[in-house]
Amino acid sequence: MSVHHEQFEIQTSGKGTHEINDDVEAIVTKSGIKLGTATVFVQHTSCSLIMMENADPTARRDLEEYFDRLVPEGATYFQHTAEGPDDMPSHIRMVLTRSSEIVPVAKGRMQLGTWQGIFLFEHRRAAHRRRILVTVMGE
Amino acid sequence: MSVHHEQFEIQTSGKGTHEINDDVEAIVTKSGIKLGTATVFVQHTSCSLIMMENADPTARRDLEEYFDRLVPEGATYFQHTAEGPDDMPSHIRMVLTRSSEIVPVAKGRMQLGTWQGIFLFEHRRAAHRRRILVTVMGE
Amino acid sequence: MSVHHEQFEIQTSGKGTHEINDDVEAIVTKSGIKLGTATVFVQHTSCSLIMMENADPTARRDLEEYFDRLVPEGATYFQHTAEGPDDMPSHIRMVLTRSSEIVPVAKGRMQLGTWQGIFLFEHRRAAHRRRILVTVMGE
Repeated sequence: MSVHHEQFEIQTSGKGTHEINDDVEAIVTKSGIKLGTATVFVQHTSCSLIMMENADPTARRDLEEYFDRLVPEGATYFQHTAEGPDDMPSHIRMVLTRSSEIVPVAKGRMQLGTWQGIFLFEHRRAAHRRRILVTVMGE
Repeated sequence: MSVHHEQFEIQTSGKGTHEINDDVEAIVTKSGIKLGTATVFVQHTSCSLIMMENADPTARRDLEEYFDRLVPEGATYFQHTAEGPDDMPSHIRMVLTRSSEIVPVAKGRMQLGTWQGIFLFEHRRAAHRRRILVTVMGE
Repeated sequence: MSVHHEQFEIQTSGKGTHEINDDVEAIVTKSGIKLGTATVFVQHTSCSLIMMENADPTARRDLEEYFDRLVPEGATYFQHTAEGPDDMPSHIRMVLTRSSEIVPVAKGRMQLGTWQGIFLFEHRRAAHRRRILVTVMGE
């Protein structure tokens, strides 16, 4: 049994989803671990991680539109508004999704289904640099 | 420390929740691992995993009804509609829940609370065969 | 590689969020594990765990208000009402958030971002004693 821990950064260009399968898979390969789990974690509170259908871009577009409507900007009761109208919705969207994803590893590869992609979901309007930590554990 | 990895399939009969506690516990027992974690993972993007109250069936019925209303079919802005009206809502319901659950293992058993059940939540109207991966890691 | 498993309890005083970073970090320190993961798990179906911005209390207040509106009490279709009007919403809010959080550990510490706090999110109106399990795994 061993642990491999590594991080990478991605640059977002405002709200939207960014697939990170290849970045995570590269770390799993480098770890040399054949059987275990890969834990993916973001160190931020205004973006999140999701598992999403990665074949048809319109599925992501619809998802983003859904979240814009589910957690709209400018709710009259919001008090946490000092960092702009898109800040409080970004925290709520983060809570409704996840800061971590865990994927089984077997035969040295993440065992994702055919259409599963791991995505960073950026919730802020402005571009941000986001740090993602990957912990591969197993044998 | 060791890793035990195994998968099983369940047949769904359309939208609804299916408890999988016994299937996962059987794999934990078989693993021989006494202390660690069990990671449960679905390889699909139109069903998901949830932890839910498993005593009263009406609690699940209310939950399913809630999700039907929270993510209704036929939103006018949906573009990803080629696979039917229940497909895009199923991806969103998956994102709002989870593709993985992780449960601590101690004394060779999952440490679930009295009323906690792990459920596969099928979001499609049609019957599907769903694959679930379980990774038990520990000593 | 080793596993350290420990639990603690917190007393809630009705609906709201309770930061547990320090309780979890103390267990990570005690484990002596330098590199790996910390899995946090609640054994209940009417409270949950979230990762949330932990600097400005109004962010949590807005989040709690949002959840009160997203999953209101007294939906006419609720059948699971025997335990009071706040019970069924508490199960749904649990499903929309999480029963577990997993955080990478490096250099003997949880690798949380600057503003990330792990919170127990109590969904019931009455005070409850809540049990939280922490499993630290690594080397």
